Amino acid sequence: MVKANDNYLKLPGSYLFSTIGKKVREYSEAHPESKIIRLGIGDVTQPIAPAILEAMHKAVDEMGVRETFKGYAPDLGYEFLRSTIAKNDYQARGCDISADEIFVSDGAKCDCSNIQEIFSLDNKIAVCDPVYPVYVDSNVMAGRAGDYDATTEKWSDVIYMPCTAANNFAPELPKETPDLIYLCFPNNPTGSTITKAQLQEWVDYANKVGAIILYDAAYEAYISEADVPHTIYECEGARTCAIEFRSFSKNAGFTGVRLGFTVIPKELKAGDVQLHGLWARRHGTKYNGAPYIIQRAGEAVYTEAGKAQLKEQVAYYMKNAKVIYDGLKGAGFTVSGGVNAPYIWLKTPNNMTSWEFFDALLEKVNVVGTPGSGFGPSGEGYFRLTAFGTYENTVEAVERIKKINL
Amino acid sequence: MVKANDNYLKLPGSYLFSTIGKKVREYSEAHPESKIIRLGIGDVTQPIAPAILEAMHKAVDEMGVRETFKGYAPDLGYEFLRSTIAKNDYQARGCDISADEIFVSDGAKCDCSNIQEIFSLDNKIAVCDPVYPVYVDSNVMAGRAGDYDATTEKWSDVIYMPCTAANNFAPELPKETPDLIYLCFPNNPTGSTITKAQLQEWVDYANKVGAIILYDAAYEAYISEADVPHTIYECEGARTCAIEFRSFSKNAGFTGVRLGFTVIPKELKAGDVQLHGLWARRHGTKYNGAPYIIQRAGEAVYTEAGKAQLKEQVAYYMKNAKVIYDGLKGAGFTVSGGVNAPYIWLKTPNNMTSWEFFDALLEKVNVVGTPGSGFGPSGEGYFRLTAFGTYENTVEAVERIKKINL
Repeated sequence: MVKANDNYLKLPGSYLFSTIGKKVREYSEAHPESKIIRLGIGDVTQPIAPAILEAMHKAVDEMGVRETFKGYAPDLGYEFLRSTIAKNDYQARGCDISADEIFVSDGAKCDCSNIQEIFSLDNKIAVCDPVYPVYVDSNVMAGRAGDYDATTEKWSDVIYMPCTAANNFAPELPKETPDLIYLCFPNNPTGSTITKAQLQEWVDYANKVGAIILYDAAYEAYISEADVPHTIYECEGARTCAIEFRSFSKNAGFTGVRLGFTVIPKELKAGDVQLHGLWARRHGTKYNGAPYIIQRAGEAVYTEAGKAQLKEQVAYYMKNAKVIYDGLKGAGFTVSGGVNAPYIWLKTPNNMTSWEFFDALLEKVNVVGTPGSGFGPSGEGYFRLTAFGTYENTVEAVERIKKINL
Repeated sequence: MVKANDNYLKLPGSYLFSTIGKKVREYSEAHPESKIIRLGIGDVTQPIAPAILEAMHKAVDEMGVRETFKGYAPDLGYEFLRSTIAKNDYQARGCDISADEIFVSDGAKCDCSNIQEIFSLDNKIAVCDPVYPVYVDSNVMAGRAGDYDATTEKWSDVIYMPCTAANNFAPELPKETPDLIYLCFPNNPTGSTITKAQLQEWVDYANKVGAIILYDAAYEAYISEADVPHTIYECEGARTCAIEFRSFSKNAGFTGVRLGFTVIPKELKAGDVQLHGLWARRHGTKYNGAPYIIQRAGEAVYTEAGKAQLKEQVAYYMKNAKVIYDGLKGAGFTVSGGVNAPYIWLKTPNNMTSWEFFDALLEKVNVVGTPGSGFGPSGEGYFRLTAFGTYENTVEAVERIKKINL
C-alpha cells in the first residue's frame, strides 16, 4: 500500500509566502476598493532592461531557424554563460573560480533547496535565526530536521544561530558542531552584512571542523560599502569548504525570467567524495538545463549596456530602501538593514507580535510586509519591508505607516 | 564532519546520455573529418513553430514595460496555461481534469525525478525493463532502490517488469505487489503502446492493491492508431490511482525551451494524505515556476495556428520513423515501434551486445544510436534509434546502416 513521505506532514502550515498571498487575496476580495501596496514578498517591479530584451528577442529568432535552433542544453549550462560568469563575478575580483565550476540553473531557490540531497541524512545543519524558510523546509522534507516543537518553534535536529540586535544581526560560531552551515549575506531577511574578516572566521571554522558552508549571495548586487565581501571565494580557504548560490532575480529583475547558478569548486569534498561530481550527477539525472533564451538573457546582464542599465535599476531600489529606512527611523521606529541590501528590518512597535503588526498594516493602512516570525523564532517582534516596490508606492507606503494608529 | 549521500555513490557509471555524449565527443575529436549523424539522444531538430515564436516575442516585449512586467509566477503555473491545458488535453477527450489539478513545470524530466520525494522511502517501485533511466536513478539517489547487483544489472528493491518481443513489449502485472508503478506509453525506449483496455487493467490493478501509477505520456502527440489511449484519465478510476506527466519537448520541440506539466487529481491519496497538497507544497518550497515567456509559448501550442504547425512537425518526424522502420526491416533487421512513437527499437544483429553495436555504428558508419542495455537488462541486444533527426540525415543514416560490414 502506497505511503506518503511523512516528513512533509511535519511542516507546520504552508510556505510563508503562500500564507501571506492567501491573506492578502482574502482581504482584497473583501475590500475591493482598497489600494494595497505590497512590500512583502521580495518580488521586483522594474521591467527587464533593454539590453536583456534585445538578447532575448535575438535568441527567440535563433530558435525559429533550423541552423541556429537549440535543443537540450549542456548539463552544466552553456559555455558562453558559464565563462562570462566566471570572468565577471569571480576572476575580476581575484577569485580563482573557473567556468566548469559553475552550474547554471533556473534559480537560486531550486539550488538552495536541492543541494541538501547530495549530503547524508545524518548531517546536521546550522541556520541563522531568522532565516529564509527554504533552507529549513527543504531539510524537513528530506527528514534531516527532526521534530518540530510548537512551543519553541524550533526543529529538534537543527542548530539555530540567533541573529538579533544584541549581535548586530551577525551569527556567532555555534557551540554544537554542524556539518552544513547555511549563511546568506547580504542577509535575507535582516538586510545585515558581515565584513570580509568576519566571513574569513567562518571559512576557517568550517575548514577546521570539516563542515561545508552553503553560502547564499543572492543579494550581492546591493552591496554599497567597502569591506563587505561580494563572494565567499574572496576568503582564503573557501574552495575547500564552500558552495555559493547566486541569482539573477534581484540584480537583473529575473524573478519571472528564472536564472541562477551554483559554484562548486573541484577540490570541495565530503570525506573522500568530490561534491562537484555529485552535483553534476544530480543535474544530469534530474534536470534539463535553463532555457537557451534565458541563458542568453543572463549573458546580456554582463554586457556594457546591460551593466549600465542594471546599475540604474539597483540604484532605483536602493533609493527606495533609503526612503523606508530614513522615513521610519525619523518616525521613531527601530530599523536596520537597507544599506547593502534591499531589505529593511523593523522592530514592531508596542511589543506587537510580527503577525499582529502584519494584520494591522494590512487592515489599517493597506500595506503588506513580511512577519519576522515567519523566518524563525528570533524574528518574532520584527518585520521585513522590501525596497522592490515602485518609488511612488514606496513613498506612499512609508507615509501610511508613519500615520498608522496602533 | 560532513558526509556525502552514499546513495549517489551506488549509481554505476554516469547518466546514460552523458556517457553517450562523451563517447561521441571523443570519437569526433579523434576523427574531425567524420560526418556523424545523431539518432541517439531523443533531441529534436526542427525549429520552433512560427505561432510560438510570435507568442514569445510578444511576451518578451511585455517583460520590458512596467505595466505588463511579470515577476514571480503563481506556484502552480499561470491560469491562462493551466486552463488551456485542461480544456485541450483533457476535457476535449472527455476526461474530468480541472485547471487546478495541473502543475506547470520546466519539464517532465524534473517532475518524473522529483515526484518520488512525496512518497515514503519504504515504498517499493516497479518499472518496465527496459526503462527511461531517470525513474530508477532518482529512486536510487533517494535510497529507495536497495543495492545494485552488477551481474544481474538489477537493484535489489526494484520490481522489474520485462518488456520483450515475447510479450510484445507490454509489461505484465507483477507477481510482487508494488506501491509505485512507473508506466510510459507510447514507450521510451521501445516505441510500443498498449490499448485502452490493457491500460484499464493497470488502473483496476492499482486501485485494487492500493498502488499509484506514475504515467509518463511525454510522447502522446505521436499516437496515430485508434484505441491507443492519449491519457491515463481516459480509463475509469484513474483519478484515484494515477499521476500523469506531460512534456512540450517532443510535440512542440521544446527540448531547449523547457516546459512540462504534471496532473494530480484532487482525490488521489496515499493512505489519508492528499497528494495534490503535498506536491503543491513541494512546488511552493522548492520551485519558482517556469518563465512567463515560456508559459506564453506553451499557450501558443494550443492556438489554431500552433496546432496546425505542430501537426506538420510531428508528421515530419513520423515520416523519418517510417524511413527507419521500412529501411531497416527491408534490410533484414528485426524492428518494432515507430508507428505511435518517434522511437524504433532494433534487435542487434549477430548477437552483438548493445554497446558492441553502438561502437560499430559509431566507428564504421558514424551513426549514433542508444544502446538498449542502457535502459535495463532486458534491453540488452537491442538498440534505439530516434526519428528526431532531419529527413536528409535520417535517409542517409539508414543507407549507411544497411551497408554496414559487421
